[in-house]
Amino acid sequence: MEVIEVKELYKNSDKYFDKEISISGWVKNLRSSNAFGFIEVNDGSFFKTVQVVFDDKLDNFDKVSKLTLSSSIVVTGTFIKTENAKQPFEIHATNVEIINLSDSDYPIQNKRHTFEYLRTVAHLRPRTNTFSAVFRIRSVAAFAIHEYFQSHGYVYVNTPIITCADCEGSAEMFKLTTLNLEEDLPKTEDGKTDFSNDLFGKEAYITGSGQLHVETFAPAFRKVYTFGPTLRSEDSNTKTHANEFWMIEPEISFCDLDELMDIEEDCLKYIVSKVLERCPEEIDFCDQFIEKGLKEKLTKLTTSTFVRIDHHDAIDILKKADRKWEFEPDYGEDLAKEHEKYITEYYNGPVFVKNWPKDIKSYYMKLNPDGKTVAAVDLEVPGAGEIMGGSQREENLEVLKELMKAKGIQEDPLYWYLDLRRYGSNVHSGFGLGFERLLMYITGMENIRDVIPFPRTPNNCDF
Amino acid sequence: MEVIEVKELYKNSDKYFDKEISISGWVKNLRSSNAFGFIEVNDGSFFKTVQVVFDDKLDNFDKVSKLTLSSSIVVTGTFIKTENAKQPFEIHATNVEIINLSDSDYPIQNKRHTFEYLRTVAHLRPRTNTFSAVFRIRSVAAFAIHEYFQSHGYVYVNTPIITCADCEGSAEMFKLTTLNLEEDLPKTEDGKTDFSNDLFGKEAYITGSGQLHVETFAPAFRKVYTFGPTLRSEDSNTKTHANEFWMIEPEISFCDLDELMDIEEDCLKYIVSKVLERCPEEIDFCDQFIEKGLKEKLTKLTTSTFVRIDHHDAIDILKKADRKWEFEPDYGEDLAKEHEKYITEYYNGPVFVKNWPKDIKSYYMKLNPDGKTVAAVDLEVPGAGEIMGGSQREENLEVLKELMKAKGIQEDPLYWYLDLRRYGSNVHSGFGLGFERLLMYITGMENIRDVIPFPRTPNNCDF
Repeated sequence: MEVIEVKELYKNSDKYFDKEISISGWVKNLRSSNAFGFIEVNDGSFFKTVQVVFDDKLDNFDKVSKLTLSSSIVVTGTFIKTENAKQPFEIHATNVEIINLSDSDYPIQNKRHTFEYLRTVAHLRPRTNTFSAVFRIRSVAAFAIHEYFQSHGYVYVNTPIITCADCEGSAEMFKLTTLNLEEDLPKTEDGKTDFSNDLFGKEAYITGSGQLHVETFAPAFRKVYTFGPTLRSEDSNTKTHANEFWMIEPEISFCDLDELMDIEEDCLKYIVSKVLERCPEEIDFCDQFIEKGLKEKLTKLTTSTFVRIDHHDAIDILKKADRKWEFEPDYGEDLAKEHEKYITEYYNGPVFVKNWPKDIKSYYMKLNPDGKTVAAVDLEVPGAGEIMGGSQREENLEVLKELMKAKGIQEDPLYWYLDLRRYGSNVHSGFGLGFERLLMYITGMENIRDVIPFPRTPNNCDF
Repeated sequence: MEVIEVKELYKNSDKYFDKEISISGWVKNLRSSNAFGFIEVNDGSFFKTVQVVFDDKLDNFDKVSKLTLSSSIVVTGTFIKTENAKQPFEIHATNVEIINLSDSDYPIQNKRHTFEYLRTVAHLRPRTNTFSAVFRIRSVAAFAIHEYFQSHGYVYVNTPIITCADCEGSAEMFKLTTLNLEEDLPKTEDGKTDFSNDLFGKEAYITGSGQLHVETFAPAFRKVYTFGPTLRSEDSNTKTHANEFWMIEPEISFCDLDELMDIEEDCLKYIVSKVLERCPEEIDFCDQFIEKGLKEKLTKLTTSTFVRIDHHDAIDILKKADRKWEFEPDYGEDLAKEHEKYITEYYNGPVFVKNWPKDIKSYYMKLNPDGKTVAAVDLEVPGAGEIMGGSQREENLEVLKELMKAKGIQEDPLYWYLDLRRYGSNVHSGFGLGFERLLMYITGMENIRDVIPFPRTPNNCDF
């Protein structure tokens, strides 16, 4: 008999009532007495389970009564509408085939496990309600991102991960090698490490961003974006840092800072709307068990208008605030977490903070006419702080060279980036969206390790 | 005046005829006389250009007449329908604003450049017709892949790139480190390299596949897939090898080899259909200039039924063939390129070759009842050979352990993979699709370096 997915049973129940059907899946819960029992079966296609009712007419009633958690089974039976019950329907089993009886030491039992513990069984935790919700939302959000950009005419560009241009300063980058690290490194005659037999014939690194590379595609396709993994070697053990995470980096030709903010706002609202629309069960679960008020927070974001203020004005607001700061706000400084929080609470919604002091921002950002600030913008959202960072790029070759010089960035390895200002330069802008920070905001999860399938952090690279 | 994208002009021409419009873009070609001239403008939104007609009524006629290739401009003028002309419309310019005059040494002039030369200007080559076609197809194909899996209920999983489990044999993998490679490596007391101060506290590698990791998510979500970059350190300088490429790896619970082939066939046809549907201009270009007959080949693929034969029978056919082989076909051996070619020509279409000798396939593939072959399948397509490789996975713990032992694979680092056979094991299958090989097939490009934005190959890691 053809197997029906549980998702289909929920979506088109009417088609199946009083018919004989089969499902295949895993035991999520089991209660049984001498004569009958109930199995909650999850088949992976849907967040919710379906209840299977069985009794001692089954040949293998004894074995079925003792099914262990996460055992895999195929159930055949009649699909019955249940009026006034917790579940809208159930399956009255005529046959329960045991595919694989889980070992009784299955590490996730039906009790509350801590997230810390569940990280030690990262290969099994997606089978729990929490991680089933989180990782399905991750998938749906990822697709919504592609959908947003593709439907708006962007071209997806896969920028390289490996680079030999040490343009970001190798201290921040992982080194990549095929040399044997278990032995002494080969040396040249003058005593330096000899990379000539390394795969690329020279030192290679992992890029910490695809931004510079993706910019080269913007004059060809007008609107482009990356979406891929980013590896950074920071030795930061915090709730919001991982050494491997995913980034989205759009770049738009003929686009200034104001237009960029329009795009950022539109894009974020689209992603959140699609998750609300496509993961209602998962969002309800997160709202109930992960972050109270999550659904309202997300719904509000999709309908609010984002405030836009200058960094200078944000500092004004902070300075006038009747409270003590751990870090005193300053016109020349970055915003601390406490500042971000205050600003989003002050405006009771998402806030774009724009036109930042040039000294604390990157060399490629567009210098404003004041000569002191750059056309950069951070989007701060309630409860999560900064989740998008963007800027208009300096399109003037001479100004860009000066900015690079001032920040000690070498021109030579970036000749190709400078070429973009030599051949068809234009006002263009882009932003970066850290996918995991977005997911923490959307799911309410507080630790980045719990929105990544197999997180990599300092001293932690299990599985 | 609001700028209109060229794509919009092509899609909804009627809306704009005889109206004043503005476009922004880059000069693809220019012809001018003393009194008037023509500029072909590409604005990146569309493969085709729009023709701008200008004359000496322009204030800056002299400068406009001398615009260099790839200069950026904003054109305002009247949008005119052109009956019986090569272009369906043109813009009669009332104003041409020069945003950035390209340096006259722009490295891509309007003549035939070799693909080898264009690789040396990889940051500019997407502006050419060929690479504009190739990289837009790449983007559209990538999205079609996501669309296929998401619409069929799959969950997208971002498997890790960094690993410390040396389960594939480190010779095949890049090593990743934060140790200073320009100095002597630190040593432990017993003279071995001391990785304790490396970021993860031990040797770290880059995985060559996400397959084992993604399998852990299959029992949670039933159907899952990866789509991300893969780094392999092979020292192979061929037209089909790159050290960084993208892979798609779906994994499906409760799915046997026959069902897997159904999915592979359906998936491939979907991707190709969507590219044909969404990139008609790009496919026409590739058909005309890259591979004659490309469009017919692709269209035929979407309507043909893929043949399914055993490896043993494929060898029979090869042995009976009236021709001389460079490599003699053998029942215990892999298929050489010449064999793949013959088989697809023999059947005049795509062929699944299944049930391979176990000795030449991976340890995790399902051992068939004959004890000699495994339930593996390669899809061979005319003109490209193997583009998908899949298998049913060995779901029996004891058999899997024996297969690992026979192949010298250590159990300990893969305890989590074995756990999947302890807790809810089931018949499951998956396949790998090399994204660039697929793109070579779809575009007709013959070198993998020409379907990757910034290719990385041995001794080549520019940009």
